[in-house]
Amino acid sequence: MSGPPPPVALVRAAVRRALSGLTAGELVLVACSGGPDSLALAGATAFVAPRLGLRAGGVTVDHGLQEGSAERADTVAAVLGDLGLAPVERISVTVGTRGGPEGAARDARYAALEKAADVHRAAAVLLGHTRDDQAETVLLRLARGSGARSLAAMSPRSGRYLRPLLDLDRRTVHAAAALMGLEPWADPHNTDPAYARSRVRHDALPVLERVLGPGIAEALARTATLLRDDADALDEWADRAEQQAGRGTGALDVASLAALPRAIRTRLLRRAALAAGCPAGALTAEHVFALDRLVTDWRGQSHVDLPGARRGRRSGGRIVVSAED
Amino acid sequence: MSGPPPPVALVRAAVRRALSGLTAGELVLVACSGGPDSLALAGATAFVAPRLGLRAGGVTVDHGLQEGSAERADTVAAVLGDLGLAPVERISVTVGTRGGPEGAARDARYAALEKAADVHRAAAVLLGHTRDDQAETVLLRLARGSGARSLAAMSPRSGRYLRPLLDLDRRTVHAAAALMGLEPWADPHNTDPAYARSRVRHDALPVLERVLGPGIAEALARTATLLRDDADALDEWADRAEQQAGRGTGALDVASLAALPRAIRTRLLRRAALAAGCPAGALTAEHVFALDRLVTDWRGQSHVDLPGARRGRRSGGRIVVSAED
Repeated sequence: MSGPPPPVALVRAAVRRALSGLTAGELVLVACSGGPDSLALAGATAFVAPRLGLRAGGVTVDHGLQEGSAERADTVAAVLGDLGLAPVERISVTVGTRGGPEGAARDARYAALEKAADVHRAAAVLLGHTRDDQAETVLLRLARGSGARSLAAMSPRSGRYLRPLLDLDRRTVHAAAALMGLEPWADPHNTDPAYARSRVRHDALPVLERVLGPGIAEALARTATLLRDDADALDEWADRAEQQAGRGTGALDVASLAALPRAIRTRLLRRAALAAGCPAGALTAEHVFALDRLVTDWRGQSHVDLPGARRGRRSGGRIVVSAED
Repeated sequence: MSGPPPPVALVRAAVRRALSGLTAGELVLVACSGGPDSLALAGATAFVAPRLGLRAGGVTVDHGLQEGSAERADTVAAVLGDLGLAPVERISVTVGTRGGPEGAARDARYAALEKAADVHRAAAVLLGHTRDDQAETVLLRLARGSGARSLAAMSPRSGRYLRPLLDLDRRTVHAAAALMGLEPWADPHNTDPAYARSRVRHDALPVLERVLGPGIAEALARTATLLRDDADALDEWADRAEQQAGRGTGALDVASLAALPRAIRTRLLRRAALAAGCPAGALTAEHVFALDRLVTDWRGQSHVDLPGARRGRRSGGRIVVSAED
């Protein structure tokens, strides 16, 4: 008896590893758009979960953004049911405008997944992101001049969300979907140059591959993994330092801050600014560096202006961020 | 009286900042290829250094790799002298083959700069790298799946090497060279697609700029700055942890390692492998992760094979890397 073809075996093995920490009887929900990645994930989960004593269901979200999206959601829900997944949820959402078209759709989708997971008491929600998606995310974030946490991109495990396919390349996953006899839907957004991710996928990565050699997607994903570990360690240090520098009092002791390496000091200052109400999206590295100069290069600056009508001040040997007055 | 045109003022201000920590009477040497960046640096340094009470000389290196390189080095040396720099060193080097054409040329060049700095007791050697060079370096290193230290790319200050122009874009620096009346030499290597850096400059970065929006070079350089701070902090933590885990004994205590976050643990394991003789170029993140599994996922693995005919073992509650036997 021969085993399954290699792509199918690889996807199944990846799902098996991701589910290995769950307890028999628990429910996992596969989030499925109908694209090849999440279809392969659904097919593999339908196969693997029962063998681990787990229950597996599926969720598909109709974003209502494209003609025929309702019918497509119906079709995807039917495919998930045919695979043996139960329960299958088919959820319609209303996409707002906040955060741009991609961001707003994502927010609506995750809200729907959260709700489905709550309703069915799912132990995990499985997402179909591949290594190529990870590489695209790293590139998109590089364009913003991001630090380690941002470049760590998507986590293989974040709360109850699992990304079993994050180490597999898209080609393998697409092959697995085809070998499982699953017919994917081609989302026109994926090739629409109006979307930054589509431009990264079809323009930027192929050029980088040609210029820098094959394996660029793998390299970007490896960088994300390394920087995730780094960001975790730095956050751990920052947690301890924050206790000592006394943010419990709403202020940071200058002497404690000055003794820290800049990477930790700027993390504490950033946290203090966020805690004081600066909007995260508007708070740049430059703002944080300006706060840092109150510690390391103080020449009597009266204050630093921060977004959200906040100000950072040095006063009585402490750094305080508060509302403008 | 009007000041100098903005590009010249920006380059001079950058040089002034970089030299502000030096003591009057000290000598700085500008490394100059004859290209526009290092010519602008030489021109600005000739102007700024005397006003800070510093002496400024120049060095140009003939790599002997291109027809007419000797004559060009003569010309560059003459230009440096005309700018008022003294002493001016014109050094011929023999470029080997180790590390590829770009690496071998760089090694030969830095060896020559080291020697010139020693001979003249220079307090600093000034290099003309710009923010665009930094962005190219980050992209080249991303292609290797690098971690924070590697992506930190070039430092504004590393030993006696200073890079005053690292925050300025190439366009500004080129404009400054032209405004100073300096005629740059166009290195054909800079446009030769045989060189990865040339491909990054002329193919990859323009496409990224088109796909991700303008400012990508600035964003990559900002990432490098942030990751430099991160890498410094993590190394500081690793230094302390290394003392505690007892590498003085040539072995790392498993219990100490297990208590550390993975980013620190893997740094210690990597250092242990290097100290035991694994060649740095051959030691990958995968090797280090295999060592890490001796700590975190030990199921009686006998050993981990490492490059340079080395092995990692877990024995008596310690991790030891040593020669195969």
